[in-house]
Amino acid sequence: MSAPGHWSVPGHWSSGVNPDIHSERTSPSFPVERVTNLLDGGAELTATRRHVESIINSDSTFSQDDRYFLTRVEQYEGSVRRAVRLREKMKELGWADNGTEAMFAFRVLGADVAFGIHNGVFIPTIKELGIEAQIAKWVPLAQDLQIIGTYAQTELGHGTYLRGLETTVTFDPSNQEFVINMPRLSSIKWWPGDLGRSATHALVLAQLYTQGKCQGMHAFIVQIRSLVDHSSLPGVTVGDIGPKMNFDQVDNGFLILQNVHIPRENMLCRYSEVSPDGTYVKRGSDRINYFSMVLTRTRLLSAEIIPALAKACVIAIRYSVVRRQSKLKPGEMETKILDYQMQQQKLFPQLATVFAFHFMASSFEAFCNQVKVQIKSKGDFSSLPELHALSAGLKALLSDVCSAGVETCRRACGGHGYSLLSGLPSLYTRVAGSCTYEGENTVMQLQTARLIKNAGFQLQSLLQSGVEQYVAWDSTSILLAQAAIAHCQYTIVNNFVETMSRLQHEPEIQQVLQVLCDLYALSGILANAEEFLHDGYMTGHQLDLVTASQRDLLTCVRKDAVSLVDAFDYSDQQLHSAIGSYDGHAYQRLFEWAQKAPMNAKVPFALFLALSSCC
Amino acid sequence: MSAPGHWSVPGHWSSGVNPDIHSERTSPSFPVERVTNLLDGGAELTATRRHVESIINSDSTFSQDDRYFLTRVEQYEGSVRRAVRLREKMKELGWADNGTEAMFAFRVLGADVAFGIHNGVFIPTIKELGIEAQIAKWVPLAQDLQIIGTYAQTELGHGTYLRGLETTVTFDPSNQEFVINMPRLSSIKWWPGDLGRSATHALVLAQLYTQGKCQGMHAFIVQIRSLVDHSSLPGVTVGDIGPKMNFDQVDNGFLILQNVHIPRENMLCRYSEVSPDGTYVKRGSDRINYFSMVLTRTRLLSAEIIPALAKACVIAIRYSVVRRQSKLKPGEMETKILDYQMQQQKLFPQLATVFAFHFMASSFEAFCNQVKVQIKSKGDFSSLPELHALSAGLKALLSDVCSAGVETCRRACGGHGYSLLSGLPSLYTRVAGSCTYEGENTVMQLQTARLIKNAGFQLQSLLQSGVEQYVAWDSTSILLAQAAIAHCQYTIVNNFVETMSRLQHEPEIQQVLQVLCDLYALSGILANAEEFLHDGYMTGHQLDLVTASQRDLLTCVRKDAVSLVDAFDYSDQQLHSAIGSYDGHAYQRLFEWAQKAPMNAKVPFALFLALSSCC
Repeated sequence: MSAPGHWSVPGHWSSGVNPDIHSERTSPSFPVERVTNLLDGGAELTATRRHVESIINSDSTFSQDDRYFLTRVEQYEGSVRRAVRLREKMKELGWADNGTEAMFAFRVLGADVAFGIHNGVFIPTIKELGIEAQIAKWVPLAQDLQIIGTYAQTELGHGTYLRGLETTVTFDPSNQEFVINMPRLSSIKWWPGDLGRSATHALVLAQLYTQGKCQGMHAFIVQIRSLVDHSSLPGVTVGDIGPKMNFDQVDNGFLILQNVHIPRENMLCRYSEVSPDGTYVKRGSDRINYFSMVLTRTRLLSAEIIPALAKACVIAIRYSVVRRQSKLKPGEMETKILDYQMQQQKLFPQLATVFAFHFMASSFEAFCNQVKVQIKSKGDFSSLPELHALSAGLKALLSDVCSAGVETCRRACGGHGYSLLSGLPSLYTRVAGSCTYEGENTVMQLQTARLIKNAGFQLQSLLQSGVEQYVAWDSTSILLAQAAIAHCQYTIVNNFVETMSRLQHEPEIQQVLQVLCDLYALSGILANAEEFLHDGYMTGHQLDLVTASQRDLLTCVRKDAVSLVDAFDYSDQQLHSAIGSYDGHAYQRLFEWAQKAPMNAKVPFALFLALSSCC
Repeated sequence: MSAPGHWSVPGHWSSGVNPDIHSERTSPSFPVERVTNLLDGGAELTATRRHVESIINSDSTFSQDDRYFLTRVEQYEGSVRRAVRLREKMKELGWADNGTEAMFAFRVLGADVAFGIHNGVFIPTIKELGIEAQIAKWVPLAQDLQIIGTYAQTELGHGTYLRGLETTVTFDPSNQEFVINMPRLSSIKWWPGDLGRSATHALVLAQLYTQGKCQGMHAFIVQIRSLVDHSSLPGVTVGDIGPKMNFDQVDNGFLILQNVHIPRENMLCRYSEVSPDGTYVKRGSDRINYFSMVLTRTRLLSAEIIPALAKACVIAIRYSVVRRQSKLKPGEMETKILDYQMQQQKLFPQLATVFAFHFMASSFEAFCNQVKVQIKSKGDFSSLPELHALSAGLKALLSDVCSAGVETCRRACGGHGYSLLSGLPSLYTRVAGSCTYEGENTVMQLQTARLIKNAGFQLQSLLQSGVEQYVAWDSTSILLAQAAIAHCQYTIVNNFVETMSRLQHEPEIQQVLQVLCDLYALSGILANAEEFLHDGYMTGHQLDLVTASQRDLLTCVRKDAVSLVDAFDYSDQQLHSAIGSYDGHAYQRLFEWAQKAPMNAKVPFALFLALSSCC
């Protein structure tokens, strides 16, 4: 300890690494870089990813140093600047729209770059539901950002239940136009991203009426804002829906259309069309459309949901080796909090979960691609129902587990985990959103359950006892949701084991992953102990053995914990965390970043940056 | 459904009540007003509370209509204005500082009024740890807001572990002064409320050194800012620690003191003193100090933690009767989402929890007052350890359960629960803070566990097997924490039953409370089913009976659900929720409030307010 008042000047601390974290890295039991490669899908992809990140990190437009201090309007404007700059960069560097570099760039920037719905839903939907002429007309304009599109499906009064959507599109053969209307307040389109301020066009999902009959939901391209002055067009009322729990930078919006006319050719018509006389024509099967929903969900897992938990683990585990509190043994230094069993109990199952989920998502993507080939080459749709069900179940389970896990990591960091500067609160509030969008999780679980064969004794017996089917479905919904979760859990553990079995040529990696796989499986049993005990699958004594084994595994993970999170290879610029940076200088960064708060700008105070020479 | 484009003009909807919520109120099974009285502690207190609320709600300074659209600086300034205005009001209306009116006023305004630490900790601590002369000098100044005080205990590197605090106060007999220092970065005071911008004085908790010896932690009054221009004094560096997950309006701050001199009489010296020659003198017992910690925690329960869950229940249950989704029976109207068993399963156990916790907190306050009398009148400290342990355990359990419950309510509202305008995200992010401040919850549980007698077989056997005591304590900490929770759960159920037994003259209330009590107890068993199954307390079959009974109870609660949350008697001004207001006009409010978002101010768009005549 240096003498009071003799703190050294700032600046030099960032060049070194906190000894408390350095000591954790001296002898990992496995080659860290190889695990990074494994997670990336190969050494070559690791190199490409780092190349893309270095380009992004070196461009000040993409810098987010001030992210915790901005107003919503500033955040939105920043995200638009980043979107435009990214498009420029991609042109400049020749990155293809669907290439590896672009994929990594979008993954690094995530929701912090605007036009996510434009790029991720508007353009792909036109490609999937449009005919060649429509694709040729709209997609190039959209890719060049000459128009910005949104996907307007959800309404103020209707989300998941698509059949309940109220917006109507009525065909008028007299002038070959569709007329769009929203019959009441609850029909207002509500929530679409990129709509509040950005979008010039909307893909409007609406009930199609022609020749006096409703033909169900279809997609229509509607211009909503002027391409000259960005003002809303006649009959269009559009705006932002206000602040949310996170995604401040996204202009989720509302849209009211009253007697808006669009030409007949603005209906996306690959699978159905309204002919000039108003006859409704259906052609081919649109079952392939399930595919885009499946792909959107899968991408969400790999790009948003699993990374949230991975980053939370990085931050919490690094912080837990530089934070010391109380003494485990009298007379010693204060103990690193990661040395407490309760802290390990909180964090290490999360770490194991990241690996389990990552491998699952990778396998699932491979499965998707396989099914895609089946469909495109042979017209074989037979795997689609399983794919659809599994994607719904996985999305629900993973987003629930990941948000709970992020929150566990956040709380494990005590008071500092409550500071936005730790990066943890926004990881939580963002991933918590994923439990709702792209399908509310309870609904998702039930979608999976509808396919589970042994839907159960209770449903059967209720039906036999004369209860009507819809009531029976509601009454057993809780059990069905549990069954869906169990089915997904089994698939994940199974997949983890299979992934490991392919690593026999890398025994050190296999060994550390074996520990994580066991920890994931045992933690899963403990978290659902009731289910195992209930029907006598396990006895209380056997459960005690599971508890004891799990405790042993925690000790095994402890020595490699920092190396394991290092292997995720998130740069400090991606973590946005004062307490989770690679060098372990948590307190210094908290102190330095706090100075930038606008709350400090108004009150003059001596800019004071200092550091004890001994910490 | 009215014709498209014929929505009626705005304004009139707010005068009526949504028929979907009105129908829920037509025949409650119990007198709603009497339950309100019961919760308030009597009809007279209900009247006083409503009187105080009406005064606050009618003063525009207290209005928070714009709360979701303000920057941190604006929120902070608003909270200061409210604090000053409240002080004026209290003088004007003759409300005593510790009177019932003031208590209700502070409870209604909660953390949205500034100087919470000043009023709730700085002043009371001086009263408890100071001698008469110190109280006479400082308290009137503080009560008149001529000085603003904070309580500076937590440091950047130390929270719960008080012995680890590093700030030093060294007595210099040559000039009868104390010299305060912070030896390193981790010693910076970090987190104190009212410190970042407001405080002129700080109660600094620091290690006292005199005659070369450390005498442990003591409290010192230190002026940190000028009373003339509010600039920080020499040797003082002070500022705001930056944004947090919530409490944007609070200026949690940091404080660096370097060679700051204060007079000898600024040490609060009721229980210990440094005499002019530097001799350390201890007098009396400061055990009574535990009492202020206990009281702070108890107040937190009644004023912040339980109300958060109560408000979340109000919002989610009201929204669930105006939101319709999908059809339970084909051909009918879409179903109110509260009619789905899964929604009831999510919400009704939370509702039962609010009642269970409210009654527990009331009983606990009564117990505190009883102990206070014992101590003050007879010097009998014998109940203090139990009080201390129970307060820690209750605080941990209730804040954990309430935050999880608020989040369950939030998610049960689907997408709109993610909008800040629903009021639910900020209820969660605020109550989540309570899991950390006033003692991190894991630590709290272990404090309770240290008193639990049958600390268990495992600890015993580990000790016998030769493991040293501190290691054994760490290894069993998970089990001990579970034991602490079980002890508290038992106390809560027991107390609920006792509370009901006193209501035999109000059978209708007793009946509805009986349902809630059973629901709370059964939900508790189901949530901890593993524990009951593990040692054969229950069989799987018995657990199935519990599940079936719980399902029946959900049906019983359904018909009274809205009346039960109405009984909490929160005004719309307290709920800050677009979807949970009394009149049930959720969609209209969402639409109207969204217009106020600053994101909409920059883009010109037609102000459009409308409503379907049929909803």
